[in-house]
Amino acid sequence: MQNLIKPLVQKNDTKIILVVLDGLGGLPINGKTEIEAANTPNLDALARESACGLHVPVAYGVTPGSGPGHLGLFGYDPQEFQIGRGILEALGLGVEIKNTDVAVRCNYATIKDGIIIDRRAGRMPTEQTKKLTEKLQAEIKKIDDAEIIFAPGMEHRFAVRLRFPSALEHDAAMIPDTDPQKEGKAPIPPTPLSKSAEKVSKVAEQIINKAREILKNEEKANFILTRGFAVMPHIPTFEDAFGLKALAVANYPMYRGLARLVRMETPAIEGTVEDEIIFLKQKYNDYDFFFVHVKKVDSYGEDGNFEGKAARIEEFDKLLPQILDLKPDVLMITGDHSTPALMKGHSWHPVPVLIKSPYVLGGLCSVFSERECTKGELGIFPTVNLMPLALANALRLKKFGA
Amino acid sequence: MQNLIKPLVQKNDTKIILVVLDGLGGLPINGKTEIEAANTPNLDALARESACGLHVPVAYGVTPGSGPGHLGLFGYDPQEFQIGRGILEALGLGVEIKNTDVAVRCNYATIKDGIIIDRRAGRMPTEQTKKLTEKLQAEIKKIDDAEIIFAPGMEHRFAVRLRFPSALEHDAAMIPDTDPQKEGKAPIPPTPLSKSAEKVSKVAEQIINKAREILKNEEKANFILTRGFAVMPHIPTFEDAFGLKALAVANYPMYRGLARLVRMETPAIEGTVEDEIIFLKQKYNDYDFFFVHVKKVDSYGEDGNFEGKAARIEEFDKLLPQILDLKPDVLMITGDHSTPALMKGHSWHPVPVLIKSPYVLGGLCSVFSERECTKGELGIFPTVNLMPLALANALRLKKFGA
Repeated sequence: MQNLIKPLVQKNDTKIILVVLDGLGGLPINGKTEIEAANTPNLDALARESACGLHVPVAYGVTPGSGPGHLGLFGYDPQEFQIGRGILEALGLGVEIKNTDVAVRCNYATIKDGIIIDRRAGRMPTEQTKKLTEKLQAEIKKIDDAEIIFAPGMEHRFAVRLRFPSALEHDAAMIPDTDPQKEGKAPIPPTPLSKSAEKVSKVAEQIINKAREILKNEEKANFILTRGFAVMPHIPTFEDAFGLKALAVANYPMYRGLARLVRMETPAIEGTVEDEIIFLKQKYNDYDFFFVHVKKVDSYGEDGNFEGKAARIEEFDKLLPQILDLKPDVLMITGDHSTPALMKGHSWHPVPVLIKSPYVLGGLCSVFSERECTKGELGIFPTVNLMPLALANALRLKKFGA
Repeated sequence: MQNLIKPLVQKNDTKIILVVLDGLGGLPINGKTEIEAANTPNLDALARESACGLHVPVAYGVTPGSGPGHLGLFGYDPQEFQIGRGILEALGLGVEIKNTDVAVRCNYATIKDGIIIDRRAGRMPTEQTKKLTEKLQAEIKKIDDAEIIFAPGMEHRFAVRLRFPSALEHDAAMIPDTDPQKEGKAPIPPTPLSKSAEKVSKVAEQIINKAREILKNEEKANFILTRGFAVMPHIPTFEDAFGLKALAVANYPMYRGLARLVRMETPAIEGTVEDEIIFLKQKYNDYDFFFVHVKKVDSYGEDGNFEGKAARIEEFDKLLPQILDLKPDVLMITGDHSTPALMKGHSWHPVPVLIKSPYVLGGLCSVFSERECTKGELGIFPTVNLMPLALANALRLKKFGA
């Protein structure tokens, strides 16, 4: 897709806003989905005059993680650009990733006589993980020429970032998991599967050995297991692919991290959705493209809290006029995937989307919902097509052929 | 598609039923299609609460044969996995095919002074073909190390299966047709185009020579022409691709043969659609996936018998509650292609489909028909996507990415 689009890109002064209500799509409980149950007069009015449809993040039947979900929205085919597990874990814990870095997911584990007897160190409390990880960080800061950063996660989980002095090869993290996947087995030593992974593997080995020494007196968390070694995906920048100077307005680290993979600007902001919109307004003159992320819609869906999810959608609906007041040339409102409260998790269902622009048919959907969007002019289409539609509606694409 | 899906497959205890009403899709005569004209209260009620849509078996405008139609439903891209004509012919005549076999379509023909003067031996009657083919079988049972099976077909047609002692290479049947395609030409001797086709070619040559000797006193059918040499396609098994233990419930040999290509279990059953459903119930605890084939819908379509086709759909509708009583986790009802009575044959039109599962929107289609299915939540999509949707609805697919 990008090979087709890039030569067509032309610049102008238009502004494009992409609002991602994370996990927006849902399923009916007592006949209505979360969006249908929510009172959303502003979204509904907008849907009536917009181009509507549903997009499929990865493929029919495939449930996307947050990484693939966002990459698709940003115009990158998630099957082509796959993000390593270590990178996603690090991004989720707020660790910044560059092309000089390797990221790894880690577990505290219990080892006895060289055998892993508990891969999760008794699912130790998050608070203890925080303390131990600070201890590791205090004693392990640099190994060979790599700067080491530890980031504690939930329960027994944490992430490590290895930052080298210069950009890494795409195969620099080809190192299988050291986690043997089963208790009763010895951990697997880090093993480089490519030439460029050798120096990374050596650093990983030293981290594991030093950690073992530091943790030797811990009752349970006396070892670390590593999984999902990954470098930053080699991915064209958003500006290079689409000619847009882009700002991420996201109050959760994971989503700033995903935006950073394609080199959007990602200032660390905090606060509510309203705070995000205040920030958007402040920065509105400085960028062409704005990715505004609303996390809590997904969070309530994940919890199976139907009313909570609907309430978060209503909350956004009340703020929507503030975004409309900016009069963006193109406004897209959608989700990165569906998170039906019914399923308490991400799902494969296509995600409703509306595109407001002067160049749409409109008049096909009476409200903004999964079911009404099936009637829309955009049909059901792969998510990766959304960015070309945005550019087209912003008159930022030249004609193809003569 | 399978490269994407296979790593996501997870197993559980769910049951999936795929009902194929062969040639289901139709076109209007006096304003209504066959399904619209049929009285189908059970299908209609199911459509109202199901995910509905239309699927495209091969590509827009392309009319599928039964082979590609079913492979698509089974989750195999019919453009990628093409089934040789000899194999399809043999399957259609009830001949079992394994990976040790070469199958060939044959014609009786008339030869004079080494020149084919009638490629169809005067379109001889089916009854005579049966007799002659039995005669060939009586005298040709084994050639070199190949066991030879003859199967008579309609008019001048029959099939031959060459069964070798061990599995064949994928290129073992690279032998062009011996049929010169035009009267007034000499038959082409079997010519191997690959190393592994040499032994097959030698056997074919001997069959042709022996047949000529056996048939030398026939007035018209004094020679045989061979076409479509083929081995079983190299195709992942259904269980390997989707993690499902599958049973084919099909009372016609062709459809058991197609299911056998992907290694579903294919017991030979006979009788009516009701007999098929009785068999389905008997075997319901032993499998994860059930392919139930209803042939007669297509047969009446092929005959141009609009009322007959509608009646067969009504007949299935009356039996549908027996399938619903099994409470499958996922039930799909569709066809392998359209067979409009108006056209007296297969057609390229997308095929209506419904998916019943707890994880659908529903409420978008008032009845089950081609026209109402255009309003459904599944849209118009390639048939090969149906299996991933089935797996997703059965919660048998893990998340893609994190």
